[in-house]
Parts: sequence; C-alpha cells; structure tokens
Amino acid sequence: MRIAILGTGTVGRTLAGRLAGLGHEVSVGTRDVEGTRARAEWTYAAPQLASFADATADAEVVVNASGGTVTMDVLAAAGEDHLAGKILVDVSNPLDFSAGFPPTMFVKDTDSLAEQIQAAYPLTRVVKTFNTMSADIMVDPLSLAGGDHTIFVAGGDAHAKTTVTGLLREFGWTDVLDLGDLQAARGLEMWLPLWLRLYGTLGTGSFNIKVVR
Amino acid sequence: MRIAILGTGTVGRTLAGRLAGLGHEVSVGTRDVEGTRARAEWTYAAPQLASFADATADAEVVVNASGGTVTMDVLAAAGEDHLAGKILVDVSNPLDFSAGFPPTMFVKDTDSLAEQIQAAYPLTRVVKTFNTMSADIMVDPLSLAGGDHTIFVAGGDAHAKTTVTGLLREFGWTDVLDLGDLQAARGLEMWLPLWLRLYGTLGTGSFNIKVVR
Repeated sequence: MRIAILGTGTVGRTLAGRLAGLGHEVSVGTRDVEGTRARAEWTYAAPQLASFADATADAEVVVNASGGTVTMDVLAAAGEDHLAGKILVDVSNPLDFSAGFPPTMFVKDTDSLAEQIQAAYPLTRVVKTFNTMSADIMVDPLSLAGGDHTIFVAGGDAHAKTTVTGLLREFGWTDVLDLGDLQAARGLEMWLPLWLRLYGTLGTGSFNIKVVR
Repeated sequence: MRIAILGTGTVGRTLAGRLAGLGHEVSVGTRDVEGTRARAEWTYAAPQLASFADATADAEVVVNASGGTVTMDVLAAAGEDHLAGKILVDVSNPLDFSAGFPPTMFVKDTDSLAEQIQAAYPLTRVVKTFNTMSADIMVDPLSLAGGDHTIFVAGGDAHAKTTVTGLLREFGWTDVLDLGDLQAARGLEMWLPLWLRLYGTLGTGSFNIKVVR
C-alpha cells in the first residue's frame, strides 16, 4: 500500500520504518526536506522524504503523526485535494506542552482533535487509532506480554476502519476494539493524562492497557 | 473498621454491602433517612442508615460514593469537624448528565474533583480510588478474569493509601497501582469518557483495564 506519514518525530519515524519493513511504499512528509534529511536519526532508515503535499499526493493512506498543536497546519500544507477521499489515520493528541509538564489539553470533553479534522476535511475518512500508547508498542505489540493488550479504532467509515485494522494486524495486533464513530476520539484523547501519569509512575513507555472483559 | 459510606446509589449500596459482609462496622449517610429506608433496594441489606453528619461522626474511614455534582454539598453536610483527620476515599466523578448522554465533565484537565475536595478539607486525607470501574467490579475483582486487572490509588498521604490498599486487598485486589499524589486524579477522572464509550460498545459494565507492563 502507498502510505504517507506526516511528521518526523518519534511516532512518524517509528511508523515509517515499520511500514516500510512490511513492504509498503512509504513517503514521509516534512516541512523542511533538506533539514530533516540531515538529522542524524534518519541515517538508519533513509525513507522517501518529501514535502507534506508531495508525500500525500499519491498515497492511499495518510497517517497524521504530527504533534497536536501543529496538526491543522500540517494537514493544510498536505492539501485538501490530496486528502479528499483518502483514509487519514489520526495518531495525534491535543496536548499543549508550552506551559511545561503536565501538558494541558486544548480540545477535550465535548470535542476532539479527530472530530475537528473530520469537520475540516469532510471528504477524508478519518480513523483514530494508535494515540493511546508509545510508538514502540504501536508497531510491535508482540514485544509486550506477547501482544495480549488492546488497541482501539474509531471512525465513521466502516471500510476505512477495516483497512486500518488490516494494517494493525500486520503489525501483530490481535485485540482491535472498534469503538464506533469518531466521537469515541474524545475518550481516546482524554486517556492521555492517565497515560502520562502511568509513564511517570512506571518510568517507561513500554506499557499498554488491556480491556479485560 | 468503622466505615461511613456517603451516598445511597448503586456504588454506595454495593460498597456498603461488601464492607459489612467483610465484618466492618458500616454506616450509610443519606440526606433522607426515612425515605432511603423505605426504598425497596435496601430491603436485602438493612445497613445502619443515618444522616451524613451522624454517619461520619464516629467513622475512621469515610467513602464519598455520592454523585460528582452533589459531592461538595454532601461533604458539607457531613461536616468539616467530622471529616478532619480522617481518610476520605473519593469514588466520585465530575460528570454532569443534565444535558443527556454523553455527560460533560465539570472539572477537568488542570484540576480534579478529588483535588477540589482536598483543597476544601485540608485536614482530611483524600485517597482517590474505585472511580475507574463499575460497582460490581470494585467489590469483587475476582469475578472478572480471576482478578487479573488493575485498580489505582492516588493521594498525598502514604499512610492513608496503605490503609485503603489494605481494604482493596480484602476485596480481592492484587494489582493495586499507586500513582502518587492527588494530581493523578485528573487522569483517573478523565478516563471516564473512554470508560463510558467502552460501556456502550461492550454493552456491559463488567470490564476493567489491566495495565500491562
């Protein structure tokens, strides 16, 4: 599958590397192609770097791995025409670290960042997933407790969720819990304060939750 | 132990019944003693019903099992003198259902209801726990997956947390995760939107999360 990753932070790099390793055709969108190429953390991977717009143009699936505070700018740079009709996997969280730790949430409770994206790009099929865990766990669930934990998907387009769930299964996910439409993103994003607290308590991001039922 | 339960909803009734069954001396506080006594759901249990103030007066541990929207009124009725120096187990969630479902959160992100309680009653030792699951799971964790799932405690008083953890172990809890001081209550309360979504998706409250690490 042709997959564009928007964002070159830990999440973007980790997803790009894993998807490429599975044989997908991955392009990584960045604001500054030359600057990103020069950064040391890319030397091991050498993905196809491009502008947000060029990376998105030919993709079938677009992954928003940008930080929540810049997500709307990144998607605007990718371009409405390039996003129309495509699946957008939204990994972002509406966390504002500008005042330090813990961050505050700039969207919450009665709205979510995923719903704001969907409202801004009604022809795009937004699926919220991945945002509830660290990057290493996203791409390699089997590295933790043999994969016996849960990932969520939410979105209004059932076909898009099926496609995304297929990618999750390629990563090794077995417990994929479909929470229904995109309003579920409110809960998925508001989980982050507890995730951050667990991260501090456990001293590692190598954990996840299992919905025991 | 002498334990006061404030609140006669499902959570209060369930906790009262279980604690009494374990041999604790349980009093249940209610706004309307005669009215509560007359309600059918009490016929099976016959706890010691009293006003909020009388129930709290001689207790060693007080459990706030009232709804979030009335919690501050209930604690005021219990009385600052009666709460001073005691352990207050806060089970409440700041959910406002007045506009229908899903509820909105009337405290969130940069504050929590538990912290508001602690600020209003600085001599009381507030411990947040139980609020992340349904009442049946709170009191009988072994009924789900043999108890292989997680409960959290948070609060600024280590001794109070030790006492509360002892009660949790009497209920059968084995994975009690201490998240540190009461600021952790923000994440514990903001978990509720995802809990409510899971409740809707699974069609039951008989689930919980396990922190897999």
